[in-house]
Amino acid sequence: MTSSIFHRVTVIGPGLIGSSILRRIQKDRSLATYTVAYDNNPDVCNRVKELQIADEVCSDPETAVKDADCVILAVPVGVMGEVTKQIAPYLQKGAILTDTGSTKASVIAAIEPHLPPDVVFVPTHPMAGTEFSGPDAGFESLFENRWCLITPTPNTTQEAIDKITEFWQKMGSNTRILDIKHHDKVCAIVSHLPHLIAFTICNTADSLEEETRSEVLDYAASGFRDFTRVASSDPTMWRDVFINNREAILEMLARFTEDAQAMAKAIRWKDEEYITETIQKGRRIRKSLIDNKQVQ
Amino acid sequence: MTSSIFHRVTVIGPGLIGSSILRRIQKDRSLATYTVAYDNNPDVCNRVKELQIADEVCSDPETAVKDADCVILAVPVGVMGEVTKQIAPYLQKGAILTDTGSTKASVIAAIEPHLPPDVVFVPTHPMAGTEFSGPDAGFESLFENRWCLITPTPNTTQEAIDKITEFWQKMGSNTRILDIKHHDKVCAIVSHLPHLIAFTICNTADSLEEETRSEVLDYAASGFRDFTRVASSDPTMWRDVFINNREAILEMLARFTEDAQAMAKAIRWKDEEYITETIQKGRRIRKSLIDNKQVQ
Repeated sequence: MTSSIFHRVTVIGPGLIGSSILRRIQKDRSLATYTVAYDNNPDVCNRVKELQIADEVCSDPETAVKDADCVILAVPVGVMGEVTKQIAPYLQKGAILTDTGSTKASVIAAIEPHLPPDVVFVPTHPMAGTEFSGPDAGFESLFENRWCLITPTPNTTQEAIDKITEFWQKMGSNTRILDIKHHDKVCAIVSHLPHLIAFTICNTADSLEEETRSEVLDYAASGFRDFTRVASSDPTMWRDVFINNREAILEMLARFTEDAQAMAKAIRWKDEEYITETIQKGRRIRKSLIDNKQVQ
Repeated sequence: MTSSIFHRVTVIGPGLIGSSILRRIQKDRSLATYTVAYDNNPDVCNRVKELQIADEVCSDPETAVKDADCVILAVPVGVMGEVTKQIAPYLQKGAILTDTGSTKASVIAAIEPHLPPDVVFVPTHPMAGTEFSGPDAGFESLFENRWCLITPTPNTTQEAIDKITEFWQKMGSNTRILDIKHHDKVCAIVSHLPHLIAFTICNTADSLEEETRSEVLDYAASGFRDFTRVASSDPTMWRDVFINNREAILEMLARFTEDAQAMAKAIRWKDEEYITETIQKGRRIRKSLIDNKQVQ
């Protein structure tokens, strides 16, 4: 009998990400021998029970975490601190606390004040997801061949980093250690800003005169459809991401706006060279992504 | 023997769109009994010959169009006028000239001055495409279940509209007659602006400091990948679209920029309600698209 990385893993917030973790563990018991799910929404708890993807579903935080050697916070980044405060008194000595939030500086700042001294926190960001949410949206292969970024704090032990690294690699992810601020900046441009833009353009379309608006829906070509796929993601999660990584996002939006204005000027003045160059850069980046195997 | 809509169809510019038309006719001879392809690039002509998707490949405009009862311009919108000027002297009396350009007001303005009085022009926009280009990129089902918009001028005869409508419906498209200016405005928001934004964000990413830039490629999450798919489209085609529909595009970009600034302000001031509302509108539009069956 091979031993598992963790004995008892508790997932707090079994939504798209959390339920995918549970499903993966159910398939691969070398990740954990026992899983517990907890959510403050009874409907979510009931649904997880029906789906039978956790060994145990708890309705109170104390029972959920008290025997766990690993607790995974898979809740919107805006409530990470509050949830940690709630569970902190019951965390086992020596337990690892980790999270799956898309922003790291703000999550660390929210969690650390509540952290008991004998619990190690490993800030983690699995870069995976779909436009769907909730326990039904998860699936066991969600993290396969996707990046999982780990952003240790000065208090994170090497032993805990190693365990979480092994855990995510067994989930199918490629892991990398990243500086906290650097993580937030990179994610602002590759993920947060594209989502902000997608939400915004849907609003721009929605605010057009009635006649045009109804036709926008009729004739939505591939460009707009791709944008709206991104735009159909979970509102609470993204609201929290925007607010919690606001400095990096506002910086990237400012840069993008400058570039968009430069493009507008080139279009107005028919600067063919500038426009062509801009488009060609897009193609080069696309090619790099394909070379990096980030694109199917 | 059933008769075909046209006897001899000439496709000028057998790229993604043009070669897809040729392939479809090859499969369904009720569209046309004979097809001719012409391109001013000899490499494209040779490739079309190798692919055997046209009954005849011509290397001069006169031979290409002189016996055709339908000539389809599938070239970038910026050269529609020039190409029409080149072929105009050889167009058959009573022939239908049509195009596949993504902008309509500018294409009509470019073509009409060169149009012989006994040739009818039917401005047409099949809303289909992929991020690939050239004769190899085409396929016979490209237009299936996609919109084909027809924007007649005061000189377009009802008979010619009916023939082109029948032609595109047999190609598998849903057709609709649209006002010229209205077409350009709707396409600016559903297609042109999303492409402009996608090209721009790739440039913003490309201009980041070296360290961040290389990681952008490593960690490009789904949001950015969807954008770059759009951004890998043909540079010449899109440069021409931007310049030729610049009024509508600049108007839509201005509206979008206002909305983005409002979102930036909401993020800076943590206006949760505004942010959530913006995201939820995106989801509603997405839902409408699914209801309209524009999304798989």
